[in-house]
Amino acid sequence: MVKIAALSGFPEWLPQGRVIERAVIDTLERTFALHGFCEIETRAVEPLDQLLRKGETSKEVYVLRRLQEQDSSRDKALGLHFDLTVPFARYVLENAGRLTFPFKRYQIQKVWRGERPQDGRFREFAQADIDVVGAGSLPFHYEVELPLVMAEAFSALRALGVPPVKILVSNRKVMEGFTTAIGITDLETVLRTVDKLDKIGPDKVRDLLISEGGTTPEQADACLAFASIRGHDDSVATRVLELVDQYQGDQPSTDRPDTAQPGVHPDLLAEGLAELSAMLTAATERAPGVMEADLKIARGLDYYTGSVYETVLVGHERLGSICSGGRYDTLASDGKNTYPGVGLSIGVSRLVSRLLADSLVTATRANPAAVLVAVSNEENRAESNSIATQLRARGIPCDVAPTAAKFGKQIQFADRRGIPYVWFHGTQDQPSQVKDIRTGDQVDADPATWNPPADDIHPRAVPATA
Amino acid sequence: MVKIAALSGFPEWLPQGRVIERAVIDTLERTFALHGFCEIETRAVEPLDQLLRKGETSKEVYVLRRLQEQDSSRDKALGLHFDLTVPFARYVLENAGRLTFPFKRYQIQKVWRGERPQDGRFREFAQADIDVVGAGSLPFHYEVELPLVMAEAFSALRALGVPPVKILVSNRKVMEGFTTAIGITDLETVLRTVDKLDKIGPDKVRDLLISEGGTTPEQADACLAFASIRGHDDSVATRVLELVDQYQGDQPSTDRPDTAQPGVHPDLLAEGLAELSAMLTAATERAPGVMEADLKIARGLDYYTGSVYETVLVGHERLGSICSGGRYDTLASDGKNTYPGVGLSIGVSRLVSRLLADSLVTATRANPAAVLVAVSNEENRAESNSIATQLRARGIPCDVAPTAAKFGKQIQFADRRGIPYVWFHGTQDQPSQVKDIRTGDQVDADPATWNPPADDIHPRAVPATA
Repeated sequence: MVKIAALSGFPEWLPQGRVIERAVIDTLERTFALHGFCEIETRAVEPLDQLLRKGETSKEVYVLRRLQEQDSSRDKALGLHFDLTVPFARYVLENAGRLTFPFKRYQIQKVWRGERPQDGRFREFAQADIDVVGAGSLPFHYEVELPLVMAEAFSALRALGVPPVKILVSNRKVMEGFTTAIGITDLETVLRTVDKLDKIGPDKVRDLLISEGGTTPEQADACLAFASIRGHDDSVATRVLELVDQYQGDQPSTDRPDTAQPGVHPDLLAEGLAELSAMLTAATERAPGVMEADLKIARGLDYYTGSVYETVLVGHERLGSICSGGRYDTLASDGKNTYPGVGLSIGVSRLVSRLLADSLVTATRANPAAVLVAVSNEENRAESNSIATQLRARGIPCDVAPTAAKFGKQIQFADRRGIPYVWFHGTQDQPSQVKDIRTGDQVDADPATWNPPADDIHPRAVPATA
Repeated sequence: MVKIAALSGFPEWLPQGRVIERAVIDTLERTFALHGFCEIETRAVEPLDQLLRKGETSKEVYVLRRLQEQDSSRDKALGLHFDLTVPFARYVLENAGRLTFPFKRYQIQKVWRGERPQDGRFREFAQADIDVVGAGSLPFHYEVELPLVMAEAFSALRALGVPPVKILVSNRKVMEGFTTAIGITDLETVLRTVDKLDKIGPDKVRDLLISEGGTTPEQADACLAFASIRGHDDSVATRVLELVDQYQGDQPSTDRPDTAQPGVHPDLLAEGLAELSAMLTAATERAPGVMEADLKIARGLDYYTGSVYETVLVGHERLGSICSGGRYDTLASDGKNTYPGVGLSIGVSRLVSRLLADSLVTATRANPAAVLVAVSNEENRAESNSIATQLRARGIPCDVAPTAAKFGKQIQFADRRGIPYVWFHGTQDQPSQVKDIRTGDQVDADPATWNPPADDIHPRAVPATA
C-alpha cells in the first residue's frame, strides 16, 4: 500500500494541465527554432563545487548521494542544477571545439532549488532558456535581438490566452556609470539594495543605502530618483544625464571626487546610455509597447555586465518576473578563452501554474483521441481495431472502447474524456456511422475518407472564455 | 575558471545528436497520441521509502539532501525516481478521483540509477513509457494492444534509419503453470535463474537451478527445454504441453506431487497458453514478423502477473532489451482499490546512444535555420532583420549573420552550420537573391513568396547512407 502525499514545491499537472503546458512549450520552441537557436539538453547534475561558485545560491542546492555510497567526500559530490546557465557554460567549454560560434541555443528543462515553496516559487520547475555565446567577443546587437525573440514568443502565446507581457530593461553600464558619476564606489551593495525596492519600498531602501551602502543622503536620493526612471525612448538617457548634472551641481566642489565633475560623464555611462537608447529604438519599431526601460531592474548579484531584463505578466505583476536575463562578458572561461554571452530564461512552471490557477487558458480536451471507435461485441473487436487503424493511418488519433458495453455507456466513456466523436462500425447492409456527441449529429462515414474539422483533430490550448 | 570533465554515465549530445533524439521522441509521441494515450509528467523525486519498496533496486537510488539541511532523517528523505512506473502508480492513486479509467498515459522523462556505467547503461537516461491502468479490472486485450502500439512506433522509426526490432513475449501464467505442473514450488528462484540464460549460458543455469532452486536434474532439464521454446503461433502452446506430458510421463508415479499428474494441466497454464496464443494470432495479423514468443523472457523479480515483453534491436541483440514491460495485476493499490495495469518502457537514451555510436541515423543539419540572411554592412542590419522577419512569418527558420564580414566569410558561416541557403538583400535597382550553397545556384527571390523545398525547412533525422 502506497501512502500518498503531494509534495509541496513539486508541482504536477493533470492531463489537461499538461496539454496547456505542452502548448506553451511548443510555441516557445517554434519561435526559438525560427530564430536559429539549436536545441540542447544537459545532464541534471553538475559537480557540487561548480554549483557553489556563486556563493549566494549554496543554500538552494540539492546534493546527491547514492544510497549505498560509503565515501561522500565533497569534491566528488554531485548536485542538481539550479538553473540552465551554469550547465550551459560548462557544456560550451566541454564542447568548444565541436561547436560553431556565435552559438545560439535553447534549452527547456527542469531545475531544482531547495527554497521554501511559495506562490510561483517551486523546488522543481521547468525553465526555457535562450542564450547566444561568442568565442572571445559578442556583438552588442544580440542584446537587442534576444529580448525581441522573447517578445515574439510571448506574442505567439497570446493566441493561447496568455496575458500580454512587459519586458523591462536596464543596463549595468548605465548603473555603474551613474553611481560612479555621483561618487559611489560600492556598486554591489547599491545594486543589492535597489533590487529590494519592490519588496521593502523606497524609504527603507534609502535607509539601507545610507546605513549599509555608505552613501550620503544626497547620493541615496539620487539613486532613488535614478531607480524611478522609466521610459520608451531617448528621454531615459536625457533624464539620467540631467540627474547626474543636478547632483554634481548641488555638491560643494571640494567634496567632489575626480570622477564626479559637472559635465563629465564617465565613458561607461555614455556607452550604456547609447546601448539602452539603441535597444529602445529597435524595440519601438519591432515590438511596439512591449519593452520599456526601468532603471531599478538590477538582477542582484548575478554577473551581468551590459543589458539586464525582467518580464512581468500584465495584470499579474505580483507574480514576479517570468523571464529574466542579461549580458555576461564572461559566461564561461577556461583560462585561455573567454566566452561572452547574453540570454534570457522563462520560468515555464511559474507561468503555467498561474495560467492554470487563474483559468486563463483552457484545453479543448485532455485526451488526444478525436474518435472513440465503439465495440458492438468482443467478437467484433478486430473490426473496431481495423477502423481505428485506418483512421490513425490518416493522422486521426483514436481510441477503441475498452469493453463492449451498451452504446450509451460507450458514448458516456467518450463524453467523460472530451472525445468528440464516436464511431459505430457498419454491417454488410449498413455503412459505418460517426456521431458528434456534442451535437448528437450522426452521419454515414467511411474510415478511408472521413475527416473531422481541423480544430478537432488534436487537443488545443485556447483562451478561457469568461 | 571551470574545470571540465565529462561525467561517466551522464550522456549529453551535441546539437546534431539532439536533432536525432528529438526525431525519435517526436515519432514516439505521435504514435502514442494516435492511440489515445494522454501525456503526463511527474516530479523527479519520490519519498525514499516508496522507492525502496522493491528491495532489489535500493542500491541504485540517488538520495537528495539540501546542502543546508540539518535533519536528514530517512522518513522524510527524497530520492530521484529510477523508473517511470513507481511515480505513475503514485500519480494514479493521488489523482484517482480526477482521472477516467481505463487511463492510458505516455510519459517521456529522465530517470536516474546509481549503477556502474557500461555500454548502453547510464546513470541518467530518458525513458518513454506507455501504460494503461484500470480501476479494479483491466481486460486482457490491452496486453495485446500495448506491444502492438510499440511495434507501430518502432515501425515508424524505421523511416529515420532505426533498425527493425523483434518484440519477444512470454507470460507469467505460462511460466508459473509450467513449473507447477512439473512440481517446482520456488518460482522466484527459477525465474531469477532462467533470467541469466543469456549471460551465463544453459550449463550454469542448470547447475544453479539444482543448487539454488532446489530442482531435480530432470526438472532443471525441463526448465531449460521450456526456456528454449520460441515461435509465432499455436505450436508454442503445443510444445509446452508436450513438455509437461513428457516430464510427467517420465516420473515414477510415487514421486509425483498432486499437481503433476499426466494429462492434468493447471488452469493457470491453460489460461496463460490461451493468452499467449491470442497475442501471437493478433500479432501475426497486425504486425507480421515483429512479435515472437520466447519463453525464456522472465523479467526477473518485477511484479508481473501476465504477459511480459522484451525487445531487441535486430543486429544489436547484445545491447540488451530496448523496450520491456508486462502486465501487473496490482500496478497500484491504496488498500481499498486496486489498479491493474500493463505497460512497456523504451530506453530512449540506450537506443539513441547506439544510433549515434554506430552512425545509423544522421541529421540533415544541426542548425534549425534554413536560411542565413547576409549583412552587407552594420548600418543595413535592420534590412536583413526585416527580411528574416518576413521569412519567419511564413514559417521559414532563419538566422542573420553575426557581423558584416565579407560575403565569402558569411557563406562559410552558413556552410559550417549546414544552413543550406544564404540570402543577399537587394537594393533599389536589384532584387534580393538567394544562394543554395550546396549547388552554388543563386536566383532572384522575394522574401514574401520564396520557399525552400519542404525537406529543407527543418533539420531532419534520416538513415545514414553507407
